[in-house]
Amino acid sequence: MSIVSSPGLSVAQRYQAIRKFTEQIVEPLSPEDCMVQSMPDTSPMRWHMAHTTWFFETFILRPRPEYTVFDEQFSYLFNSYYNKVGDQFPRPQRGLISRPGLERIKEYRDYVDKHVCKLLISGELSGEMEYAIEVGLNHEQQHQELMLTDVKHALSCNPTLPVYEESPAAPFESPNQEWFEFSEGIYEVGHEGKGFAFDNESPRHPVFVQDFSMAGHPVSCGQFIEFINDGGYNRPDHWLSLGWTTVQDKGWNAPLYWVNRDGNWMQFTLSGLHPVNRDWPVCHVSYFEADAFARWAGVRLPTEFEWEHASIESGGDQFAELLMNCGMAIHPTGGETEKDQPAQMFGGVWEWTSSSYAPYPGYVAPPGALGEYNGKFMCNQYVLRGGSVATSSNHIRPTYRNFFPPEARWQFSGFRLAR
Amino acid sequence: MSIVSSPGLSVAQRYQAIRKFTEQIVEPLSPEDCMVQSMPDTSPMRWHMAHTTWFFETFILRPRPEYTVFDEQFSYLFNSYYNKVGDQFPRPQRGLISRPGLERIKEYRDYVDKHVCKLLISGELSGEMEYAIEVGLNHEQQHQELMLTDVKHALSCNPTLPVYEESPAAPFESPNQEWFEFSEGIYEVGHEGKGFAFDNESPRHPVFVQDFSMAGHPVSCGQFIEFINDGGYNRPDHWLSLGWTTVQDKGWNAPLYWVNRDGNWMQFTLSGLHPVNRDWPVCHVSYFEADAFARWAGVRLPTEFEWEHASIESGGDQFAELLMNCGMAIHPTGGETEKDQPAQMFGGVWEWTSSSYAPYPGYVAPPGALGEYNGKFMCNQYVLRGGSVATSSNHIRPTYRNFFPPEARWQFSGFRLAR
Amino acid sequence: MSIVSSPGLSVAQRYQAIRKFTEQIVEPLSPEDCMVQSMPDTSPMRWHMAHTTWFFETFILRPRPEYTVFDEQFSYLFNSYYNKVGDQFPRPQRGLISRPGLERIKEYRDYVDKHVCKLLISGELSGEMEYAIEVGLNHEQQHQELMLTDVKHALSCNPTLPVYEESPAAPFESPNQEWFEFSEGIYEVGHEGKGFAFDNESPRHPVFVQDFSMAGHPVSCGQFIEFINDGGYNRPDHWLSLGWTTVQDKGWNAPLYWVNRDGNWMQFTLSGLHPVNRDWPVCHVSYFEADAFARWAGVRLPTEFEWEHASIESGGDQFAELLMNCGMAIHPTGGETEKDQPAQMFGGVWEWTSSSYAPYPGYVAPPGALGEYNGKFMCNQYVLRGGSVATSSNHIRPTYRNFFPPEARWQFSGFRLAR
Amino acid sequence: MSIVSSPGLSVAQRYQAIRKFTEQIVEPLSPEDCMVQSMPDTSPMRWHMAHTTWFFETFILRPRPEYTVFDEQFSYLFNSYYNKVGDQFPRPQRGLISRPGLERIKEYRDYVDKHVCKLLISGELSGEMEYAIEVGLNHEQQHQELMLTDVKHALSCNPTLPVYEESPAAPFESPNQEWFEFSEGIYEVGHEGKGFAFDNESPRHPVFVQDFSMAGHPVSCGQFIEFINDGGYNRPDHWLSLGWTTVQDKGWNAPLYWVNRDGNWMQFTLSGLHPVNRDWPVCHVSYFEADAFARWAGVRLPTEFEWEHASIESGGDQFAELLMNCGMAIHPTGGETEKDQPAQMFGGVWEWTSSSYAPYPGYVAPPGALGEYNGKFMCNQYVLRGGSVATSSNHIRPTYRNFFPPEARWQFSGFRLAR
Repeated sequence: MSIVSSPGLSVAQRYQAIRKFTEQIVEPLSPEDCMVQSMPDTSPMRWHMAHTTWFFETFILRPRPEYTVFDEQFSYLFNSYYNKVGDQFPRPQRGLISRPGLERIKEYRDYVDKHVCKLLISGELSGEMEYAIEVGLNHEQQHQELMLTDVKHALSCNPTLPVYEESPAAPFESPNQEWFEFSEGIYEVGHEGKGFAFDNESPRHPVFVQDFSMAGHPVSCGQFIEFINDGGYNRPDHWLSLGWTTVQDKGWNAPLYWVNRDGNWMQFTLSGLHPVNRDWPVCHVSYFEADAFARWAGVRLPTEFEWEHASIESGGDQFAELLMNCGMAIHPTGGETEKDQPAQMFGGVWEWTSSSYAPYPGYVAPPGALGEYNGKFMCNQYVLRGGSVATSSNHIRPTYRNFFPPEARWQFSGFRLAR
Repeated sequence: MSIVSSPGLSVAQRYQAIRKFTEQIVEPLSPEDCMVQSMPDTSPMRWHMAHTTWFFETFILRPRPEYTVFDEQFSYLFNSYYNKVGDQFPRPQRGLISRPGLERIKEYRDYVDKHVCKLLISGELSGEMEYAIEVGLNHEQQHQELMLTDVKHALSCNPTLPVYEESPAAPFESPNQEWFEFSEGIYEVGHEGKGFAFDNESPRHPVFVQDFSMAGHPVSCGQFIEFINDGGYNRPDHWLSLGWTTVQDKGWNAPLYWVNRDGNWMQFTLSGLHPVNRDWPVCHVSYFEADAFARWAGVRLPTEFEWEHASIESGGDQFAELLMNCGMAIHPTGGETEKDQPAQMFGGVWEWTSSSYAPYPGYVAPPGALGEYNGKFMCNQYVLRGGSVATSSNHIRPTYRNFFPPEARWQFSGFRLAR
Repeated sequence: MSIVSSPGLSVAQRYQAIRKFTEQIVEPLSPEDCMVQSMPDTSPMRWHMAHTTWFFETFILRPRPEYTVFDEQFSYLFNSYYNKVGDQFPRPQRGLISRPGLERIKEYRDYVDKHVCKLLISGELSGEMEYAIEVGLNHEQQHQELMLTDVKHALSCNPTLPVYEESPAAPFESPNQEWFEFSEGIYEVGHEGKGFAFDNESPRHPVFVQDFSMAGHPVSCGQFIEFINDGGYNRPDHWLSLGWTTVQDKGWNAPLYWVNRDGNWMQFTLSGLHPVNRDWPVCHVSYFEADAFARWAGVRLPTEFEWEHASIESGGDQFAELLMNCGMAIHPTGGETEKDQPAQMFGGVWEWTSSSYAPYPGYVAPPGALGEYNGKFMCNQYVLRGGSVATSSNHIRPTYRNFFPPEARWQFSGFRLAR
Repeated sequence: MSIVSSPGLSVAQRYQAIRKFTEQIVEPLSPEDCMVQSMPDTSPMRWHMAHTTWFFETFILRPRPEYTVFDEQFSYLFNSYYNKVGDQFPRPQRGLISRPGLERIKEYRDYVDKHVCKLLISGELSGEMEYAIEVGLNHEQQHQELMLTDVKHALSCNPTLPVYEESPAAPFESPNQEWFEFSEGIYEVGHEGKGFAFDNESPRHPVFVQDFSMAGHPVSCGQFIEFINDGGYNRPDHWLSLGWTTVQDKGWNAPLYWVNRDGNWMQFTLSGLHPVNRDWPVCHVSYFEADAFARWAGVRLPTEFEWEHASIESGGDQFAELLMNCGMAIHPTGGETEKDQPAQMFGGVWEWTSSSYAPYPGYVAPPGALGEYNGKFMCNQYVLRGGSVATSSNHIRPTYRNFFPPEARWQFSGFRLAR
């Protein structure tokens, strides 16, 4: 799921590559598939396609007097949550809107792309507009990952368990679970300097971290099955109080998409129903399940600062990537455990940390509507780090802070232990 | 919305005409439009198309050993509520199923039609099977009307208010509101003899009816506006207790699809937003609103027996019909008030009666799964009579009992006064 | 549960007797018991005591200029649903109001009683006021029955299953289930002439009734256990569609208050947990359960007109009554099956009929706030006839129409079969 | 609201003083008042009285073989959330349980007190048991504060706005809003050494804190009125996304208990409805409102570590206390702003911090059921510091971590600004 990495590419080339990738994601899908909104947290594919386009139109093109808006009604229909640029169509009803249809949305994309590219090539963009382009591209990459998680959830609601795209099972060997030690100290965390980062990764600042150990790999499916077999989902003492309530209300007894067929765990994937691979990192678990597993194992989840510090000392290579045909390619330098460093920190699964999503000291939201991108969500969510197989490789970096509510499971979310 | 009436047509010809009409309804719609389920009471167009086909496959073809089922999974996906033929996919989630898509469903229709027609032409059908064909055709006609009400509701959720099909506004003159008197007596009501009728219309039986008067026309939009202007929606004393609760919970202040623009009432229709025509029967009102209007006017709704008796004495002509292009044709013999008889009783709007939907004395549900068609819904619903512009003309008859819960408004439902 | 019947008693004496009986009901209860509202349908004892008093104050005393209102705030706190006399405190929150406390409410009762009795003795009351007194007394008797059903429900929520009052088990022999036949005809039903009746029992009017048979007794617990043992609660084909949804949502598998201990059915009663007596009429079932049982048995419920007609031909004696100590006295003339007439029609259990609660032809609600007593509830409810052990004997009459939604179970509600 | 402070008192004396104070809180209340549970978050007074007693019985007395349990059923009825000692009666239904009544619960308290005191005097208690006594006393003090917040909420549901106890309005002068600066450094936070503290206050550990400033006083009602008048509740840009949703869902437009009468803000208090005192700290606001105010003011909330550090440098005196007659006494050394230190940090209002409630590094929950006291609630809650007028003065300390969900408002919760 990577586009050619940016060095040597012009912004216009990157723009085109990233925009095109969105359309590649939709290629295996029918207009009907692109309509489904299977829960309020997800969005239809057609909405993602239009909303990412709306972003460029609203923040890049619309301020320019010479630009003619494609369709005024879209500004209401495809605004997600930016109060400063107007009202929003109610999120849970996105699946009720059949028009504009997929074809019309593709025309919208073409129209906006044509205008943006002309601007990019003209070289007329101000620094502020260049930043907005960068945000827009990273925004689109975030939505590309959401498209994969959302379509997976949508297809899983169909009792016929449709296949998004066939793929061969990825061979994968069990990692060795070693622990790596890190010493107490004041460490700098967060983003600084060149290269794009979201506002929530700044300011870079010192934190005091005590001695800690970090597991060499994320918890595997096989390990998680041990937790299940030990009654993990039935014993309240492993769980946060809210987690236990959730487990009982929802009737959880395994990660999302797992089904037990005649005693064997199977999982629904983008290529249909397959046996669970015990060596693969466990995925589609909530913060509650990650935390409960850690208590059961007598350890804990890392803080996001411990994670960031450890990841910088690790090789930093991407572990795996989702191929366009939905298979998975494992990278030689990402998959193996080298001496003295944790492995698989990037590009396997998003890893829940124990850190509540909060602003860094001195954080100030950017002015204008883009200031609504991150800051207002800093409540009752937990930070995930590292990026998943569904994250574009050039969208991954050690300071990246993803965040979801503790009950969310439809992301490619796993976890790693610390102590 | 009529097909050529049945006399002179073979069953096979009627089968083909009715089946084809379903596809005509879908013609102006995109695959995306056919996905929308805008509330649990409605269904996606693609579901209606498949379910009506499933009905023929299940009750006509599947019992025949030589028949090969089109797709076994459809029997679960497209069963509506027949417990005796298996489990059902949860109704409120019909809008989440994107596969089979529209094209595949059309193949399903073609496949089943080919097999049914072969059977019909062969003349091999037993009497029981012929009855099932009749039920299937009437069932499909019911769904045709539901398709129009459901797609209207679906499109109304889109803030761009899309047009199903353009149509010229129908000219229509204000009817004179006269009252017609009927004398006390024991009258026979219900269906008997030849011609198809649903089980709930039988047995034909005597009822004692006191003297009553019946309004010459359904209540018009203009009359209903007077009710609104007199504070009808704000005064609890007009309303049933449940009705008043509903008005407050839902914030109703006018019929469904009415919007007030600068003091003028507009209504969303299948051809977009149009001014309310004061002379046209009011439509898309609940039983609660019909009852409240009647109390406000100092009169009442008719019972279904009063209605049936009066309708037989009226001319019986169909008042209007929805053209395929969604306009409305008014029939000369149906629209005018002749001496000594109520008018517009058929084919304008379904008319709420004060009668709770209940079995006729001696009613026995048919054996087998078809026995689930009507009887099990006889609770907390009210009977509507007469048929609407969206009802096929050969599907209308005086003994027909339609029924909906008292809060339902998305049908073409109006009402007529009695005293 | 009877007060001395009215003949020979002055209105003032009847007033005092009925009012006193309310206080007798509360005697075994603590101030805490009188606070509980265990579901939105029920009310706390202290609310019943105050509301019945509010009724006399509002409709009898308040219109008199010389009367000083006890506490102005009570008019809001203790209005149940009379929109015409002002706003109402939200019903589901009645259990949150701790003040006025029980003692203060007793003072309120004494104060109002003193003033009403003075009026009654003075003989100054107009005919209209005398009617309001009659309504008020019958209203209080209705609430007395509700107090018993509500306190039973409240105590049942306490896992310690407290006893309202100890009572010996009533000996009772199995009735013989005979059927009695009635011939087709036009019968007069409803109230007319002297003696109090609610507005909903009028006008008396002719109805046409076909030949029918009526069971000699209500369905017994033993018969109902057969239904349970035959999988009655697990087979959708016995049930109305709404009923089946309710059974599954609520997890019903027996009448309310029944619990299975080691294979034996026990029931929670006002005197604690006792074994189910197989010969006693089944009680605390919903309309859905009554209807399902009838379908399972291959018969049906009677209409309210069939019931009324049959009851007049029966002896009319009250079958049983709840003693003040909560035992049950069986009346010799009410409990035995005499030749040629159904038995136990009055005073055993309220019997669900198949009739939706609707106005009689020509019904007009009384003017003023008392017009809100019955008419506005005529929707989505079913009529019960006969009165229960918890109904005062002088409150029972053949034309009496009780009504509840089809899912209600906390009343003393059973049923009788017809065919 | 203080008991004589502990120095010089034996444990038995402290036990008796604290237990007695619970009964003093209930003194002005009726048995009916003690029944009310006005929302799922609160509990009836009678439940608090029994649950605090259950705590001592369960953890101190029950393990001793010679002890005879008062009533076995209480162990189910009055367990709050300790899974390890058995099932719990469902929390939202605590208000439905009328038995045991208040008198019986007082007998329960007396019985347990007698046995605990005998033990305390005997000197036989192990260190582990002594710790449990300490937890039990602090637990009871927490419930004493909850009793005041819960009864306030309960009484506020009564439209007659009952008075818990009359009290004169406290005179109070406007504080000067200065800012105090603190320098960057590594500071030790958390509890260590002698004196009781809850497990969640340990281990004491170093944190790195950057330069910050802290307001000299909590935000006052007058300041908060400016926020309201500036449209604070109507502008989404001040609010966290979840906060804005909450404001709209609940229709908040002022702190809890505030009502606007003819343009003047009044507040419901334990002594009835009084005008808002502009100089008094604003109270009964949620984390969302505290955060929105801070954004509006262009600053932020302090972290819990900033708060703790600043509080140690402040005088540490308690600002005010709720008198038993529900008035408020202001302490001379707590109320005034002295040079170079923030004031009113203890005993005015609980102050929301920006810190999500999380374990300190190295935190391990205690073994056994007491380990459920704090750790399992560390999710989606925010830390409050300082103690309120309703907190016993000997229950207040700088390291104390109170915690509530961000939408909670019924506690005595205010906030202080930082930057």
